[in-house]
Amino acid sequence: MKFKKRALAIAIIAGLSTQAQAGSELSTLLMLLHENGTISDAQYKRVLAEAQASEQQQVAEKKDIQAQLDKATNVEVNVGKGGLAVKSRDGSFTSKIGGRMQLDSAWYGEDDSAAGSTLGDGTKVRRARLYIKGTVNKDWFYKFEYDFAGTGDTKKGITDIWVGYNGFDFDGLSVKAGHFRDPFMLQDQVSDNNTQFTERASIDAFTASRHIGVMGSINRKHWTTALGVFGEKAKTDGGSNDEGWGLGGRATWMPVNEKGALLHLGLAANYRSTGGDSVQFKQQPETNVSGVNFVDTGSLLDVDHYLSIGAELAVVQHRFSGQAEYIRTTLERDAASDPSFDGWYAQTGWFLTDDTRPYTHKGAKFKAVTPNNPFGNGGVGAWEVALRYSTIDLMDAGIDGGEMENLKLGLNWFPVAGLRFSANYIKVLEVDGGEHNNEEADIMQLRGQWAF
Amino acid sequence: MKFKKRALAIAIIAGLSTQAQAGSELSTLLMLLHENGTISDAQYKRVLAEAQASEQQQVAEKKDIQAQLDKATNVEVNVGKGGLAVKSRDGSFTSKIGGRMQLDSAWYGEDDSAAGSTLGDGTKVRRARLYIKGTVNKDWFYKFEYDFAGTGDTKKGITDIWVGYNGFDFDGLSVKAGHFRDPFMLQDQVSDNNTQFTERASIDAFTASRHIGVMGSINRKHWTTALGVFGEKAKTDGGSNDEGWGLGGRATWMPVNEKGALLHLGLAANYRSTGGDSVQFKQQPETNVSGVNFVDTGSLLDVDHYLSIGAELAVVQHRFSGQAEYIRTTLERDAASDPSFDGWYAQTGWFLTDDTRPYTHKGAKFKAVTPNNPFGNGGVGAWEVALRYSTIDLMDAGIDGGEMENLKLGLNWFPVAGLRFSANYIKVLEVDGGEHNNEEADIMQLRGQWAF
Amino acid sequence: MKFKKRALAIAIIAGLSTQAQAGSELSTLLMLLHENGTISDAQYKRVLAEAQASEQQQVAEKKDIQAQLDKATNVEVNVGKGGLAVKSRDGSFTSKIGGRMQLDSAWYGEDDSAAGSTLGDGTKVRRARLYIKGTVNKDWFYKFEYDFAGTGDTKKGITDIWVGYNGFDFDGLSVKAGHFRDPFMLQDQVSDNNTQFTERASIDAFTASRHIGVMGSINRKHWTTALGVFGEKAKTDGGSNDEGWGLGGRATWMPVNEKGALLHLGLAANYRSTGGDSVQFKQQPETNVSGVNFVDTGSLLDVDHYLSIGAELAVVQHRFSGQAEYIRTTLERDAASDPSFDGWYAQTGWFLTDDTRPYTHKGAKFKAVTPNNPFGNGGVGAWEVALRYSTIDLMDAGIDGGEMENLKLGLNWFPVAGLRFSANYIKVLEVDGGEHNNEEADIMQLRGQWAF
Repeated sequence: MKFKKRALAIAIIAGLSTQAQAGSELSTLLMLLHENGTISDAQYKRVLAEAQASEQQQVAEKKDIQAQLDKATNVEVNVGKGGLAVKSRDGSFTSKIGGRMQLDSAWYGEDDSAAGSTLGDGTKVRRARLYIKGTVNKDWFYKFEYDFAGTGDTKKGITDIWVGYNGFDFDGLSVKAGHFRDPFMLQDQVSDNNTQFTERASIDAFTASRHIGVMGSINRKHWTTALGVFGEKAKTDGGSNDEGWGLGGRATWMPVNEKGALLHLGLAANYRSTGGDSVQFKQQPETNVSGVNFVDTGSLLDVDHYLSIGAELAVVQHRFSGQAEYIRTTLERDAASDPSFDGWYAQTGWFLTDDTRPYTHKGAKFKAVTPNNPFGNGGVGAWEVALRYSTIDLMDAGIDGGEMENLKLGLNWFPVAGLRFSANYIKVLEVDGGEHNNEEADIMQLRGQWAF
Repeated sequence: MKFKKRALAIAIIAGLSTQAQAGSELSTLLMLLHENGTISDAQYKRVLAEAQASEQQQVAEKKDIQAQLDKATNVEVNVGKGGLAVKSRDGSFTSKIGGRMQLDSAWYGEDDSAAGSTLGDGTKVRRARLYIKGTVNKDWFYKFEYDFAGTGDTKKGITDIWVGYNGFDFDGLSVKAGHFRDPFMLQDQVSDNNTQFTERASIDAFTASRHIGVMGSINRKHWTTALGVFGEKAKTDGGSNDEGWGLGGRATWMPVNEKGALLHLGLAANYRSTGGDSVQFKQQPETNVSGVNFVDTGSLLDVDHYLSIGAELAVVQHRFSGQAEYIRTTLERDAASDPSFDGWYAQTGWFLTDDTRPYTHKGAKFKAVTPNNPFGNGGVGAWEVALRYSTIDLMDAGIDGGEMENLKLGLNWFPVAGLRFSANYIKVLEVDGGEHNNEEADIMQLRGQWAF
Repeated sequence: MKFKKRALAIAIIAGLSTQAQAGSELSTLLMLLHENGTISDAQYKRVLAEAQASEQQQVAEKKDIQAQLDKATNVEVNVGKGGLAVKSRDGSFTSKIGGRMQLDSAWYGEDDSAAGSTLGDGTKVRRARLYIKGTVNKDWFYKFEYDFAGTGDTKKGITDIWVGYNGFDFDGLSVKAGHFRDPFMLQDQVSDNNTQFTERASIDAFTASRHIGVMGSINRKHWTTALGVFGEKAKTDGGSNDEGWGLGGRATWMPVNEKGALLHLGLAANYRSTGGDSVQFKQQPETNVSGVNFVDTGSLLDVDHYLSIGAELAVVQHRFSGQAEYIRTTLERDAASDPSFDGWYAQTGWFLTDDTRPYTHKGAKFKAVTPNNPFGNGGVGAWEVALRYSTIDLMDAGIDGGEMENLKLGLNWFPVAGLRFSANYIKVLEVDGGEHNNEEADIMQLRGQWAF
């Protein structure tokens, strides 16, 4: 009899879900009461049937809740740093809307006896950019960014407009096509949000900037390489003449690349055929409010093509960081001798707080500082002091573009992620040659920046 | 005694929730044990009270979870195609942020003996648009779109800026007001994202384009009609003279309109009073990189008004699609005879893959191709070859604008939804008259496009 | 024996979770059956262990669901008014993407005998703005807004670009830095979305508008105060001369400030040093389509600085609202006598529907009307009629800028939140002096507006 009851119970219980381990206590009790003869066969079956129905209902309810939860957590929305970021559960699809605002204020002191006052004090919206970027189908990614602080034609504000693909089997390989920066110059690869000073060093006169093109790159933890072929800038309009084109490559080696410890070495070359367009190299004294260039080759008309080469060095040791770069540009002229211009800078920074300058091997460049102790939560944010010497020489082969030497002292405050205030003092040590020969200026510049 | 016990049990159980069927197993067991005399009245009541409390708590917990779930699923966020789309649960409120990037590269070969080299090779950001559109209170909808690839005045980049209402009882009726396209020309109604070639056929010289206006339209599965009254373009600034205005209507009939099977017939007319402004019709050889127009009436000053009429035909049969259109524009001049210009094109496409060209009766136009087998998931995307003949004649009544005939061969690759690469070869068969008389050009054009 | 069993039971139950009250019914039953001797010690332990495992599993499942719910409700997404708003659970982080579209259409009737036709009928995209704004880390907030309807340089479209902080202990205190409106003139503080008429009263000629600057303000329910120091407008480019700068302050007192009941009194002053730039005050006849100014001082070259003062009054009594303002601007010229210009307006509105004009002490200004009974849900939206008299005098110290008096009648329809249609009839009562002396115009203006 007991055996028969047990067999019945086992047969019925076997029909229940696999959650029999936990959750089977009532069934077990029923079985025991049945075995003990406390309840009859009929009573046993009746209650067991109810228990079974109950369990099925619970399973259905759980499924329903989980389905709703899956739907609700299908896409993750994030507003942590301002802007708006969304991500599908598996990360195959993402969208991020963000931007940057940089507002400058500058005061100029000049040695009036030399060349008269040339720099006007003032304020400026340095950059006002919005972007949307994203990932689609895991392997495809794109960016669309526009700078509203441009002057003149609408089209001038186009910065990044490109599509990329990284679904290759080869680790770290990606290809992108569109309008983006040539792979040249460390300080140019670093976003202007994340440069150590408000303006880049004066060799930015040799910037390759952005063009419409196609680039392949490999980004690994300890080395990167990139090679691209480029047409013209987005702002350049067509016409009856063929446009210019270029070819650029960059390779870096990072034997040390850990959080708070970096040794970065890099080489890059950039070739550009002018397509008959004129070429001009010029630079302001590492300020951008007055718009006056202290060195300037003027418009060079008969340049067929030019080649720029650059060498990069960067180190990070916890709070300390250093960065140096040398660039030489050689122009090929049809009817005159071929001038070479060059310049270099070395800069160093030291965090007063327990912070470090972050770096990424994706693009081999520095990233945004995120303070370890944000301001407003008892913390003071991140504070950094920085010093730079830079020089540029635009005098060669009869071109009197001038030579400039600057010393720059900077203080950066990063109260919370995304926000930055910088004060820069620039001492123009010497301008030699060119229209601003012997100019010596003291420049005080403030910037408020919000990158979201 | 048993009866009394059962009555007690029933009374107590009745106080429990309606989930008594499943979920009542413990109560039933209790009742039976009580009936059997295994447990006493007091014991029975005690355990039953606990079961009751337990059930109430479970109901409360479920309610709480469902409330949280409702909140969490109140708005659905989607990043499936790039961009960002959100939708309230019932669809009454939606917002979508998206855009398009089109980057062109073109190479020109010309018969130099005739007119000399006139087209310059180059690259171009053809379009760089962002939009936000949405639905509010179910019946109201709006769109705000801007093209950052414009040249010149900021205002020129405004494309769609309008509000609509479709809360009428009449099926398919909607009204919209703002800046949007006149209802004219099939190839103009089709978004430039979705045209079969990178550029529209040369009768695009007669485009009505966009104006500030009000339009009513009815869109049904087998026919559509639209009628609007329009002021000037967004980029036109006021002044002392009255601005131009226009009136436009379009009607279509789609006796066959299923997925993969379409017969579309259409007629449209567009009247425009110039308000004293000059009028010009001109067209590039179906490329937009060099910016050189091969046919051009020049600025016509004494035009009081003009009337354009158009006839449309489109067919789809699974992988095959065809499209043809004829336009005639007649100008009313005050002091000179009235010229008529016209043109037509016929184009056809064939998908190499198992895909079809999708169509919507909302606006009676073709939509974006979404590949059946996206690239990267084992598929190759959608591949289409296409061929077009087009001609335009801008010579009449003493106006020597020229006549042009083009043949165009196209290859389209749609790897994943939103992404498109196109290669177009254009053979300018003949230019007759005008400044580019006898010009014969070979044009190779590539486009990368991302519409998100 | 019973004691022993009970002790055992208590010991085991004590090991279960704290949910023992509700949810312990099976344990209680087991204990009782054990006490009654219906089940053995071994049976009791066995079932109790299963119950314990079951409960632990349920607790784990609930935790898991709650964790998923927490994640799903971590950020709240809202599309209620169009646009897109997201908010973290505690409100510390928010982002909102929105914008405005204003499309105008105007018809002008003029007394041709006096000065000939000067205003051209037409249409215009008055404003086409997008913005993103947000809160970060609770205390920081920012806004980035651009107007795509500008003409000319890209940079002209920059409206609001600023960062603010309000994490002070002092109630209502906040500081902001960037490009934003000087704290001057009530009708200027009110967003153009929310002004009672399509255009502001003619003293808008004295607008302080927006500059790059820093401002501190205190906003309390019954009073506000703001003080800022400002540089130049975003669109102003630097150069060799120092730019202009300004100082502005505003204080308001709202002895009555409830929903539907307001008494607002305000005073403001705005000082501006020109930095050598020319100054011009001019105004259209409260329409913006034709672009013709009826009063205009022309370019005043030798102004060193100028000071504007203003007095504000506003009342709301349920459906009724009234608003009046007086402004006087005095110019300091180096080589000529110092002119003073002034003007004032008084306007009043009456809602035909059961609505009221809402006001906020944050910035001491009127807000957007949200209809109590939106159109389309059986309601008719909100309807308001309004009347305004305004005058401006730009004639003094030999400057013949003219004097203008306008009467304006308005009808506003707010069908749903965000949407507004306005019809304005303007009667230019008199123009005295200046180039448009004796001009008398009748102006009919329509606007469709969508603010999302």
